[in-house]
Amino acid sequence: MSETDRGDFRARIRRNFARQAAMQTIGAALTRVEHGVVEIELPFDVKLTQQHGILHAGIISAALDSACGFAAYSLIDPEASILTIEFKVNLMSPGRGERFLFRGEITKPGSTIIVADGRGYAISDGPAKLIASMTGTMMVIRGREGITG
Amino acid sequence: MSETDRGDFRARIRRNFARQAAMQTIGAALTRVEHGVVEIELPFDVKLTQQHGILHAGIISAALDSACGFAAYSLIDPEASILTIEFKVNLMSPGRGERFLFRGEITKPGSTIIVADGRGYAISDGPAKLIASMTGTMMVIRGREGITG
Amino acid sequence: MSETDRGDFRARIRRNFARQAAMQTIGAALTRVEHGVVEIELPFDVKLTQQHGILHAGIISAALDSACGFAAYSLIDPEASILTIEFKVNLMSPGRGERFLFRGEITKPGSTIIVADGRGYAISDGPAKLIASMTGTMMVIRGREGITG
Amino acid sequence: MSETDRGDFRARIRRNFARQAAMQTIGAALTRVEHGVVEIELPFDVKLTQQHGILHAGIISAALDSACGFAAYSLIDPEASILTIEFKVNLMSPGRGERFLFRGEITKPGSTIIVADGRGYAISDGPAKLIASMTGTMMVIRGREGITG
Repeated sequence: MSETDRGDFRARIRRNFARQAAMQTIGAALTRVEHGVVEIELPFDVKLTQQHGILHAGIISAALDSACGFAAYSLIDPEASILTIEFKVNLMSPGRGERFLFRGEITKPGSTIIVADGRGYAISDGPAKLIASMTGTMMVIRGREGITG
Repeated sequence: MSETDRGDFRARIRRNFARQAAMQTIGAALTRVEHGVVEIELPFDVKLTQQHGILHAGIISAALDSACGFAAYSLIDPEASILTIEFKVNLMSPGRGERFLFRGEITKPGSTIIVADGRGYAISDGPAKLIASMTGTMMVIRGREGITG
Repeated sequence: MSETDRGDFRARIRRNFARQAAMQTIGAALTRVEHGVVEIELPFDVKLTQQHGILHAGIISAALDSACGFAAYSLIDPEASILTIEFKVNLMSPGRGERFLFRGEITKPGSTIIVADGRGYAISDGPAKLIASMTGTMMVIRGREGITG
Repeated sequence: MSETDRGDFRARIRRNFARQAAMQTIGAALTRVEHGVVEIELPFDVKLTQQHGILHAGIISAALDSACGFAAYSLIDPEASILTIEFKVNLMSPGRGERFLFRGEITKPGSTIIVADGRGYAISDGPAKLIASMTGTMMVIRGREGITG
């Protein structure tokens, strides 16, 4: 990692997002990266649905977890990494829409534990509709073999 | 639905699992259906990983949510359906292994609210390793347009 | 209940708060009641602590649950009631301070399920410090014996 | 701490339980301490109720959190301590009964993060009734000022 790259959390987050094969599998794109805030967008795709034709709760969780986790990345040293310890997701409205926006924001920074909150929205013609929320607990990892980036 | 089908929760669960496109997308198979217990298995696939090469937490959540939700299906009338209200997932060990087993079990049945607990295991040569747990709250849905099966 | 009382959610919430003996036991006061928002305050008391001398997580949960639950009361018919189905609490900083403020706010209203989010703050001389958050799922109860008010 | 006391987790847990003033305030007793399992019992007391006359969810959380936290204590060095990072509680049946039993058990030990699961039961004449469950994430604390024991 070059000297000029140190602290460039945006580049690091984009690089790590690109390495999350699961995000490509579900068709998600990283659309906003700020200090403490990350957004991920996802077009509706029937291959992501459950039996009622709406977005599967696990897909919603995947996008929210990545948004929350990368929001945590924006706070840490370039040598550190983030692992999700746990999260809770509330599904508030059926995941129907043309596309979906998932925002993760840091609620509580910390040197070891970071708490992030996420919101998911369905977007069609009208105003965005809140479909889900997440609260996630993330751990900052340093020097653990196999867990870098 | 024919008379002989009434109460055949196994067939209903298999039919609904087959309609969950997200389960096909991640390569999951329904491997056990009992009254109050459902198991789903998943081979490791690099397309399901996050940046450290382990199973993405959202994929773990997808399989656990389906296992818990279908465990709830095993308790309800054929005309009713199940929606997940919320769940919490703890990621306890990295999702590394040849394949994964996800079991959902009913902790508290109910006419409106059903609580299920799930466990996820990584399986390679040795003993299965606990990688994740879920507690999910499911709602029994009756007569809501667009939500059947 | 008199005709003029219909819809007076503030009076109903105050009456129900007064009937929560647990709130009196911990010394909590209802300090704000708006449509969708309720605040509860609590002076520090050594009798509410855990072994490190900070507020016990269960006491924090009690105040947040009441704040979230009564925020839900502000949305429902006078004949209905609210039961907490589940909640998640994150403890973000030690519960140290002269007094504590707990705010519950409605995130998603609903005829059966209401989702509320709560935040707890420690207050001393300086600015309020975020110590905890809650996401709670509440059920609207109608016509169940023994569950009124 | 004397040499003979090293590793005597039962004595340490009893001592720390006795220092949790909140447990005395709610009338809880530590009734079982094993490696990885702790039980706390509580007689019904009207002063612990919410508006429907049942045990307040926060009181249930307090007892479950202490049971889970002390179960984590049974795994750690005498010099270390435990802080709850977060928990989720499901309230499955109204907290009615003569007394209540709360059991915390370790699901996943760890050097930094310990995951515990708890169950709460109401006990009267008949069989114990499951009223609540908890999954809690605990952090092992070492060398942090003001957090010992």
